Amino acid sequence: MKLINRDYKRPSKELVEAYREVAVATAHEAMGRKYYIDSSIRPLYDGMKVCGPALTCQCPEMDNLTLHAALHIAEPGDVIVCTLGDYKEQGPFGDCLATSAMTRGVEGLVVNTCVRDGETIHEMGFNVFCKGHCVNGTVKSVFGKIGYPLAIGGQVVNPGDIILGDDDGVVVIPLEIAEELLPKCLAKQEKEEQVREMFRSGITSWEKNKFSELCKAKGYDLDI
Amino acid sequence: MKLINRDYKRPSKELVEAYREVAVATAHEAMGRKYYIDSSIRPLYDGMKVCGPALTCQCPEMDNLTLHAALHIAEPGDVIVCTLGDYKEQGPFGDCLATSAMTRGVEGLVVNTCVRDGETIHEMGFNVFCKGHCVNGTVKSVFGKIGYPLAIGGQVVNPGDIILGDDDGVVVIPLEIAEELLPKCLAKQEKEEQVREMFRSGITSWEKNKFSELCKAKGYDLDI
Amino acid sequence: MKLINRDYKRPSKELVEAYREVAVATAHEAMGRKYYIDSSIRPLYDGMKVCGPALTCQCPEMDNLTLHAALHIAEPGDVIVCTLGDYKEQGPFGDCLATSAMTRGVEGLVVNTCVRDGETIHEMGFNVFCKGHCVNGTVKSVFGKIGYPLAIGGQVVNPGDIILGDDDGVVVIPLEIAEELLPKCLAKQEKEEQVREMFRSGITSWEKNKFSELCKAKGYDLDI
Amino acid sequence: MKLINRDYKRPSKELVEAYREVAVATAHEAMGRKYYIDSSIRPLYDGMKVCGPALTCQCPEMDNLTLHAALHIAEPGDVIVCTLGDYKEQGPFGDCLATSAMTRGVEGLVVNTCVRDGETIHEMGFNVFCKGHCVNGTVKSVFGKIGYPLAIGGQVVNPGDIILGDDDGVVVIPLEIAEELLPKCLAKQEKEEQVREMFRSGITSWEKNKFSELCKAKGYDLDI
Amino acid sequence: MKLINRDYKRPSKELVEAYREVAVATAHEAMGRKYYIDSSIRPLYDGMKVCGPALTCQCPEMDNLTLHAALHIAEPGDVIVCTLGDYKEQGPFGDCLATSAMTRGVEGLVVNTCVRDGETIHEMGFNVFCKGHCVNGTVKSVFGKIGYPLAIGGQVVNPGDIILGDDDGVVVIPLEIAEELLPKCLAKQEKEEQVREMFRSGITSWEKNKFSELCKAKGYDLDI
Amino acid sequence: MKLINRDYKRPSKELVEAYREVAVATAHEAMGRKYYIDSSIRPLYDGMKVCGPALTCQCPEMDNLTLHAALHIAEPGDVIVCTLGDYKEQGPFGDCLATSAMTRGVEGLVVNTCVRDGETIHEMGFNVFCKGHCVNGTVKSVFGKIGYPLAIGGQVVNPGDIILGDDDGVVVIPLEIAEELLPKCLAKQEKEEQVREMFRSGITSWEKNKFSELCKAKGYDLDI
Repeated sequence: MKLINRDYKRPSKELVEAYREVAVATAHEAMGRKYYIDSSIRPLYDGMKVCGPALTCQCPEMDNLTLHAALHIAEPGDVIVCTLGDYKEQGPFGDCLATSAMTRGVEGLVVNTCVRDGETIHEMGFNVFCKGHCVNGTVKSVFGKIGYPLAIGGQVVNPGDIILGDDDGVVVIPLEIAEELLPKCLAKQEKEEQVREMFRSGITSWEKNKFSELCKAKGYDLDI
Repeated sequence: MKLINRDYKRPSKELVEAYREVAVATAHEAMGRKYYIDSSIRPLYDGMKVCGPALTCQCPEMDNLTLHAALHIAEPGDVIVCTLGDYKEQGPFGDCLATSAMTRGVEGLVVNTCVRDGETIHEMGFNVFCKGHCVNGTVKSVFGKIGYPLAIGGQVVNPGDIILGDDDGVVVIPLEIAEELLPKCLAKQEKEEQVREMFRSGITSWEKNKFSELCKAKGYDLDI
Repeated sequence: MKLINRDYKRPSKELVEAYREVAVATAHEAMGRKYYIDSSIRPLYDGMKVCGPALTCQCPEMDNLTLHAALHIAEPGDVIVCTLGDYKEQGPFGDCLATSAMTRGVEGLVVNTCVRDGETIHEMGFNVFCKGHCVNGTVKSVFGKIGYPLAIGGQVVNPGDIILGDDDGVVVIPLEIAEELLPKCLAKQEKEEQVREMFRSGITSWEKNKFSELCKAKGYDLDI
Repeated sequence: MKLINRDYKRPSKELVEAYREVAVATAHEAMGRKYYIDSSIRPLYDGMKVCGPALTCQCPEMDNLTLHAALHIAEPGDVIVCTLGDYKEQGPFGDCLATSAMTRGVEGLVVNTCVRDGETIHEMGFNVFCKGHCVNGTVKSVFGKIGYPLAIGGQVVNPGDIILGDDDGVVVIPLEIAEELLPKCLAKQEKEEQVREMFRSGITSWEKNKFSELCKAKGYDLDI
Repeated sequence: MKLINRDYKRPSKELVEAYREVAVATAHEAMGRKYYIDSSIRPLYDGMKVCGPALTCQCPEMDNLTLHAALHIAEPGDVIVCTLGDYKEQGPFGDCLATSAMTRGVEGLVVNTCVRDGETIHEMGFNVFCKGHCVNGTVKSVFGKIGYPLAIGGQVVNPGDIILGDDDGVVVIPLEIAEELLPKCLAKQEKEEQVREMFRSGITSWEKNKFSELCKAKGYDLDI
Repeated sequence: MKLINRDYKRPSKELVEAYREVAVATAHEAMGRKYYIDSSIRPLYDGMKVCGPALTCQCPEMDNLTLHAALHIAEPGDVIVCTLGDYKEQGPFGDCLATSAMTRGVEGLVVNTCVRDGETIHEMGFNVFCKGHCVNGTVKSVFGKIGYPLAIGGQVVNPGDIILGDDDGVVVIPLEIAEELLPKCLAKQEKEEQVREMFRSGITSWEKNKFSELCKAKGYDLDI
């Protein structure tokens, strides 16, 4: 087995750009409430966003050698999705690597550890979704794997899957459903705007959804 | 037992407005350091505030049907206090419901789970105290209870109790003590301002409180 | 044993001021990745910074009497490093003590609990590194120790050690190595700027560090 | 308001004894999956069990004065349900109080902290459901409340409610439903034994529940 | 995509039996310290063991319909590896399903939640590796997937991989390396016994590994 | 500074043996409720005990080279107290090292991580106080320090301090107070037995401590 697999499909740039307008919560709903990376992985600072194809990168614990390789081979727009074992108090990524990543057009980083130099990364405008701030360094010794399925936040991420992140966290959009999912997301967003408009007029969700009838059907005796 | 109890007392609007000027820490102190909801429940974004009578709402885990009813019957100024079991990784509330809540004059939401669409809720200016961000959705199937005492963050909240929240977290002011507590809070705030003024002049808390004498009385041999 | 020990060395003001320009992550690296207080202790609000000699203060759990004494005897520029047992849900410090601390020129507070009145402390511009927000008060009853080594976040802090904090957390610089460490930190910062400059030109960390050669030497068959 | 309320109903001894044969999981199911104290509160050692009416006891944090009073007034068979704020690293109960409790016929203790002298308590055969082992002591200074509703593990417990505990944790059986619930529990246990008998014959739960038909009705195309 | 995939390779019974004598820690070392499911998933009671091919089963959160199907189609010796979202406070498996599983020859269950009826399961002798005890029930509504790769405890598990569990936790042995790994494990166990024998004779690990020489080579000045 | 400091005082064997009869909770009380290592560090299996002078050992994270040296130089009866950074999911100690430790007469190990081969260590009868079971291995690369003060579980441990552990956890008895503390512990144990005897006769702690009078003095109006 080769340590670096580059033989995987990627989404088109158009598809990725279209998803940039979709909220994480909307995509999650449209996929039947699946593929959400658990909420321990969050934007390093509120307001960060990420959208792009996953370049998957598995490092051994406390060792970021493989992440350097991923940053080297990443294509513009890639989101590097990286794991380093189970210990969040590692800092495999800081402002130097962020500088390189931005220069090369990397879209962002999703990692199951902390990062360091968070303040500078924030000022630079690079997008990181992680478990917080920590300065513990890592070694560069053992090579893991790049371009293979990995497990992060309870989800399997395949290389080329679309990674979408905002303040709500991160959702994985499997590449094989990404095309057909997009119109559902857009329709859902449009419908949600209509719902909000309806709610702004004073109608409640209880009325809109006819929950009184539902509850009567279920035998609830509500005074509402 | 009726599933929805509307037969409870509420504080006067004047009383609620008066509490709006009181800090959570001050009210907590004035009540003898009781009635603080544990700090796992925090403003979704720094700076959010909430003050109003509790409309209590108990949902089954992963099911927000009852919350829809609470939002439907809430009166302007109400703070909906909602529980959905013990699992924080649920998102029973998002920007659509926030839109409806604001339209209807709901003061805010205190919930023992996460919420979704946090960024949009923040932009809208709606006040949510919760356990963070998460997109996991909920079903609308089983009706819980509205208007009964519930347990949240280690406290019992009765409907009509005044809920007060700021960056320090949330405190419950039981309705039966709210009237008599208010002057104590105001006096405490005034006194604290005097204390700060004294401290600004260079007097320390050690001097002000005559802790040297206290320590001598306790037999401490301090070189201070 | 005296309860208050004032007989310890302090760093010169010049040395402290020089460290003010050093990042926590840089100092940590320069010390061989040691002396990092674990990341449960963080700036109360993003952007807070602290740099100064430690005035160590050990309180019993739920009792801040000793902290009042530390605030009374602190010299301008001191960073009070305080422990109160293992329970984070205590609020031994609030806006009144912050007012006094600022008036007396205290540089900041590092404490292994929460604090209260966080919002006001933030507005005042006082620097606190702690475990979050909480209003639980403390008593003033039992005197602990001031000016002795203490354990916080997995590190031993001696009085007079330099405490350095930013968004990355807090690092302890032992006084006996502080002089010789400073040029290493400054050199490291300069070198890092050169590295970032190199990365801005498009060279990757993989190329810079000749990781291909390293990997070949280790026997990895990489297609890179 | 009196600090000690003794004016509440208790279940009959017969009813309590009947529940002793009911498993926690069974009672929870029979109540529609409600009233489960969250699983942070567990038997101190595997195999401990508890069944009896709740004597509720609210202490301030780090202060067990009220618990001494509860042990003094407890009737034989009572389960003392006690809270002391939110901090688990307290040890308000040890082998001395356990000796007194056993002598007086107290059935057991459910508390939202740790306890100390666990090994001795285990040897004595006293039943404690709590958050683990810890030696931190408590003071005896401020009196809380006895005999009022309290919040523990996400549930409201009223004095007189039946408390049932085994390796699965603790469930609260509200007194007002305890009589009518019992036959449901017994029927459920009988039915479960029949189900196990059926399963022992080789029939699977999939077959017994006709899940293939259910799934076909839902439109799932299963090869099963 | 079919919801149930049965088209995967399985290890031979001989291979599985051979691994039954291998310790989790040994297999983990022999695989280069990889494939360890994080230690949040542990034997429900000390002493439980499991060894067999994975039958992977992905359920939606709070819904165990798919697990019923997995138990129906499992072959004797299979270890069911099951996920139900991220919430540990679910009890998708209890003594009834354990009875069925044992009758059908299922080897054991590895699940990322709690289970209920733990005491009875223990008495029955069924092997469960999970996150603890909890009675919260689940619904039977939405079908997930069986026989596909899933993410559990930070690892990707493929159907047919060998699952090995003891008090140290659970390790995944990918099927494609299982044959060639076995002799390494056995050799390692033999060597470890020799090491223990050497240590029993009084030689220390420091001497055996010639760490004094290593440290001298690294420039450490040790007085040892 | 030498990396290994052997120049510290040790308690006499008689003193250590005398403490073997003292419970952790008793020693903690006798020391004014201080020096308790937080309860995250527990006996690996219930019933383990430890009593002896600390041999302190500080390893870098994920690196147990220094622990090998500590095991090499340990004297019979020593308790090795070891830290390896902040990450509990490491296994720096297993059955091979336990074999060596027992052969050399080491009393036990207190470590701020997990260990592996727990089951075998338990069968061997070696005493380990730690954070649980985990198989993650460590490297042998960087030497830390032996024989210096270290921070573990919120306490500073000096070499030569007496370490006492049972099911209640671990307490540190500073060497300089160990002699004078012992009679206090023994007296306390004797007194506690008298208290238990009194409680066995039916007198409650409320009566024994005259809490009714205390409460009357404090102005509580109790009906007791």
